[in-house]
Amino acid sequence: MTNATHESSTRKAVVLLSGGLDSATTLAVALAEGYECFSLSFEYGQRHRYELEAAGRIARKAGICHREMAIDLRALGGSALTADIDVPKNHMQNDIPVTYVPARNTIFLACALGWAEVLEAGDIFIGVNAVDYSGYPDCRPEFIRAFETMANLAVRAAVERTIRFRIRTPLIHLSKKEIIAKGMSLGVDYSATHSCYDPAPGGQACGQCDSCRLRMKGFSEAGIPDPTPYTRESS
Amino acid sequence: MTNATHESSTRKAVVLLSGGLDSATTLAVALAEGYECFSLSFEYGQRHRYELEAAGRIARKAGICHREMAIDLRALGGSALTADIDVPKNHMQNDIPVTYVPARNTIFLACALGWAEVLEAGDIFIGVNAVDYSGYPDCRPEFIRAFETMANLAVRAAVERTIRFRIRTPLIHLSKKEIIAKGMSLGVDYSATHSCYDPAPGGQACGQCDSCRLRMKGFSEAGIPDPTPYTRESS
Repeated sequence: MTNATHESSTRKAVVLLSGGLDSATTLAVALAEGYECFSLSFEYGQRHRYELEAAGRIARKAGICHREMAIDLRALGGSALTADIDVPKNHMQNDIPVTYVPARNTIFLACALGWAEVLEAGDIFIGVNAVDYSGYPDCRPEFIRAFETMANLAVRAAVERTIRFRIRTPLIHLSKKEIIAKGMSLGVDYSATHSCYDPAPGGQACGQCDSCRLRMKGFSEAGIPDPTPYTRESS
Repeated sequence: MTNATHESSTRKAVVLLSGGLDSATTLAVALAEGYECFSLSFEYGQRHRYELEAAGRIARKAGICHREMAIDLRALGGSALTADIDVPKNHMQNDIPVTYVPARNTIFLACALGWAEVLEAGDIFIGVNAVDYSGYPDCRPEFIRAFETMANLAVRAAVERTIRFRIRTPLIHLSKKEIIAKGMSLGVDYSATHSCYDPAPGGQACGQCDSCRLRMKGFSEAGIPDPTPYTRESS
């Protein structure tokens, strides 16, 4: 893909696409803003590989260039999403949950930055959210701002002053209800997304983990039918 | 390895260990400062896998916990060290070389941060150097400072205020000659290290790439015999 085949006014963006509700909505926002989008997913040793299939489906539907990058975060340990720690069910936590993966967004954004530099894409979109799930430190605005500052010192473009990178977080101040409403207005097909931390062997969402519960609550509050077939509704 | 088996005064450090001269010296500095060291290497799709064997040798000699983490940077493209671009020979470059891997130190430090959080290790050592090889933007002090600021907002410990992370760069202002002199004073066995970007099939250093030339020049200027057997001396 060369610049010559595109209008010079087309801006490129790398979009972190987990396959979940938030990242699918973030991609829709980036596309609606007119970006040529390049989506990036990670095979990082997560229990819930079904989200990777969801990410592939979403990218294919959007007709964009998609890459899946392998990075073995299990080597670092420390999370219920990658290690042998049980995913908690039926209790929302107020402190940082065991599903927190150490430095995950830092690592994912760093990889996105590398690809953005190669593509000469100035914008990196990530669907972090500081409202419903404030337990993750790497979803906070102050982290995002510090990463952006660092990014603009880290790469060749920072020396050559050809690009200034921006970390875009269109969902950061939205509730789950507002995210779903925004996605629906942009035509997101949420049936293609996958949120569950602990799906059944066939990929069906458990309906009980924190992620399923937030998703159900969001659809309920938005007054929109949740297209997800759950194994079992939460208690 | 639990805290109970160690004096509480033992500080832990994660040390990025590529298997080259600089990282071996950096590890020696961290050990000399009394840290309990945990070394981390990356299998990132590099041409020069021999450095990984060197890293393993150095860690075994030091008797420290060592991890090799797989991360496929080839998915991002853009570097002679991972992609199908020839490694330049016999000409030192003044601008950023094609062996630059986009965002590599950012990605490596992000992974080290994740492990440091799990280990509760406050210090991360990296053998970057801004003197002999200033073409890499992610070797500059201003990048390191910005990464440290970001790191302390990124992780659980930043929220819980239990650790303040430091990115330690003991070599950043040293010439290659000074690095070698320091390493020799700390007993580093440089015959165990590997620097070449484009080794022969048996692993022997080429003697012609930028990395070999810097290494030879450093030993020469330090007045110390270079223990490396080169395929061919540079012209």
